Amino acid sequence: MYKLGSLICALALAGATTIAVAEEWQALPDKAPDPADNPTTPEKVELGKVLYHDPRLSSSGTVSCASCHNVMAGGEDNRGGSVGVKAQVGGRSSPTVWNAAFNATQFWDGRAASLEAQAKGPVTNPIEMGMKSWDDVVVRLKAIPGYADLFAKAFTGADAISADNAVKAIAAYERTLITPNSAYDKYAKGDSKALNEQQLRGLQTFAETGCGACHSGPGFNGSQNGQGAGDYIKFPGIENGALEAQYGFSKDLGRYEVTKNEADKHLFKVPTLRNIALTAPYFHNGKVTTLDSAVTIMAKTQLGRDLTPQQVGDIVAFLNALTGEFPKQEMPRLPGYPGKTFDFE
Amino acid sequence: MYKLGSLICALALAGATTIAVAEEWQALPDKAPDPADNPTTPEKVELGKVLYHDPRLSSSGTVSCASCHNVMAGGEDNRGGSVGVKAQVGGRSSPTVWNAAFNATQFWDGRAASLEAQAKGPVTNPIEMGMKSWDDVVVRLKAIPGYADLFAKAFTGADAISADNAVKAIAAYERTLITPNSAYDKYAKGDSKALNEQQLRGLQTFAETGCGACHSGPGFNGSQNGQGAGDYIKFPGIENGALEAQYGFSKDLGRYEVTKNEADKHLFKVPTLRNIALTAPYFHNGKVTTLDSAVTIMAKTQLGRDLTPQQVGDIVAFLNALTGEFPKQEMPRLPGYPGKTFDFE
Repeated sequence: MYKLGSLICALALAGATTIAVAEEWQALPDKAPDPADNPTTPEKVELGKVLYHDPRLSSSGTVSCASCHNVMAGGEDNRGGSVGVKAQVGGRSSPTVWNAAFNATQFWDGRAASLEAQAKGPVTNPIEMGMKSWDDVVVRLKAIPGYADLFAKAFTGADAISADNAVKAIAAYERTLITPNSAYDKYAKGDSKALNEQQLRGLQTFAETGCGACHSGPGFNGSQNGQGAGDYIKFPGIENGALEAQYGFSKDLGRYEVTKNEADKHLFKVPTLRNIALTAPYFHNGKVTTLDSAVTIMAKTQLGRDLTPQQVGDIVAFLNALTGEFPKQEMPRLPGYPGKTFDFE
Repeated sequence: MYKLGSLICALALAGATTIAVAEEWQALPDKAPDPADNPTTPEKVELGKVLYHDPRLSSSGTVSCASCHNVMAGGEDNRGGSVGVKAQVGGRSSPTVWNAAFNATQFWDGRAASLEAQAKGPVTNPIEMGMKSWDDVVVRLKAIPGYADLFAKAFTGADAISADNAVKAIAAYERTLITPNSAYDKYAKGDSKALNEQQLRGLQTFAETGCGACHSGPGFNGSQNGQGAGDYIKFPGIENGALEAQYGFSKDLGRYEVTKNEADKHLFKVPTLRNIALTAPYFHNGKVTTLDSAVTIMAKTQLGRDLTPQQVGDIVAFLNALTGEFPKQEMPRLPGYPGKTFDFE
């Protein structure tokens, strides 16, 4: 467990009522860590931005990474289940791509250990982007003349256009998708005026209620700057028949689907709370449509607490202070396939 | 008919072999004309860019104007029929939004007399963006706090958030989507080296074959800078059983669907040839996958000419010289709906 989270939690358990001071809270780093085998370069980022927005990476030519992880918005699609090719609806809600670089693992069940590994998944998922194989993707990329130059600039060696390089470029781009300078970050850096009175009350209530036990670290995702194994928590932690009847949270076995270990049933990765106000609906199945309800349910099922409407309102005000600054981005130009088209389904 | 087109056509008919000089050809204007009741302003353009990219203007929350008219690419989707909500596929190929400001009318059948009128259509078309009504769209826009400010900046008066203002803003944005400075434009402005030898042969063949009789004016769309009633041409102009069997061009009654006048059967608006290399597949039904085939078919069905492979190659080389410079654009930020979501279908 994250030590400051623990400290706050301990304070909460001890019934301490002193407000957490700014120094106890961590601001989002300005840069995301990059792995040794995929250092971030401007050329990779540029290529990755193009690939991320190119719908020709889907069988129908209509779905790009950005379709479900919209960087013009909160980094996802504000839907319960995302819509892939042939209008197929996925069973889990798209997590935000913003600050995903600070997650220790990716996907709700943590089945990808890196952004690179994550990027490989949806392209060939039959209900997402629907490509038969990455080989088919590479055939398309090689057919588009402009990609040869973009890959050659980003990577050395012959045969630069490959699945591995494509996902490396996408991951490099995603490492630039971070949102610093939220009101909370300014507060954490020492500007005591950055949070208003309600947000400060919310911060205190967040800490005292114990939310920070899981939602710890600068990303509020149980992860120390994207390192480590990641935190998995059982959800719902406390069974609740009424909530189950209403939302069906337990239909999804979570991490068990990956590991098949009995102990992993209903375990989910702790998601970031950064920009959480922009990513409704909530939870792995996207069944909860408001942040107020999400906070109420979390307190109930994870901490056994019944929050008052004022406490919920205060925490939501604090969570709104986690909405950061989105970097300005130039639209990529998707290289053309002059005079020809692909056989989209 | 456009007079320079006529001149070239006349030269062609007279068997003249002198190459058309640069002065006979018109470059694309740097600015698109704007109507008196919707002058282009930076604030409208900014709002329009946001609306254009906002998928919340569709019933599913997944389809924006940009989905089928992708401004990161050739201004459409490189598909035969476009894909709307619930994976419904439209019967006609999306025309490009690039330089649409220079079309006298919009849609393949010219049923919209302005960009403003055009923008109203797809949002409530059940197989495109699927909204039940523009009133429902306005309800959503009013629910998103950030839109109040964007509309207030772009329009005066109370109740600035309206369907009329939304489409005015989208149209204002679209009037900025123009692609000047193609190799052809540089040639037309007097740079005789701007076109290579094959492109020059193609320009001459284009003129001599008579293509410019319909594809005239600076937009190569039979329209003088977006003014006038627009040109409608019967397609196929000359019946051809083999082509009909292969492509089924005549299944679509074209402008007749709008006017119900017998004389309008199979009439279609003359589409622009600007950036035509980027907008495969071709024709109203998007059944022709290569530009080579499109040129061959056009000469056959519209001009009764059988082009040689070299002539086709030369014309295609010339058409590639109509690919312009795409203006750099910053990605819009879609205003959030903090802590809530819409009931997307």
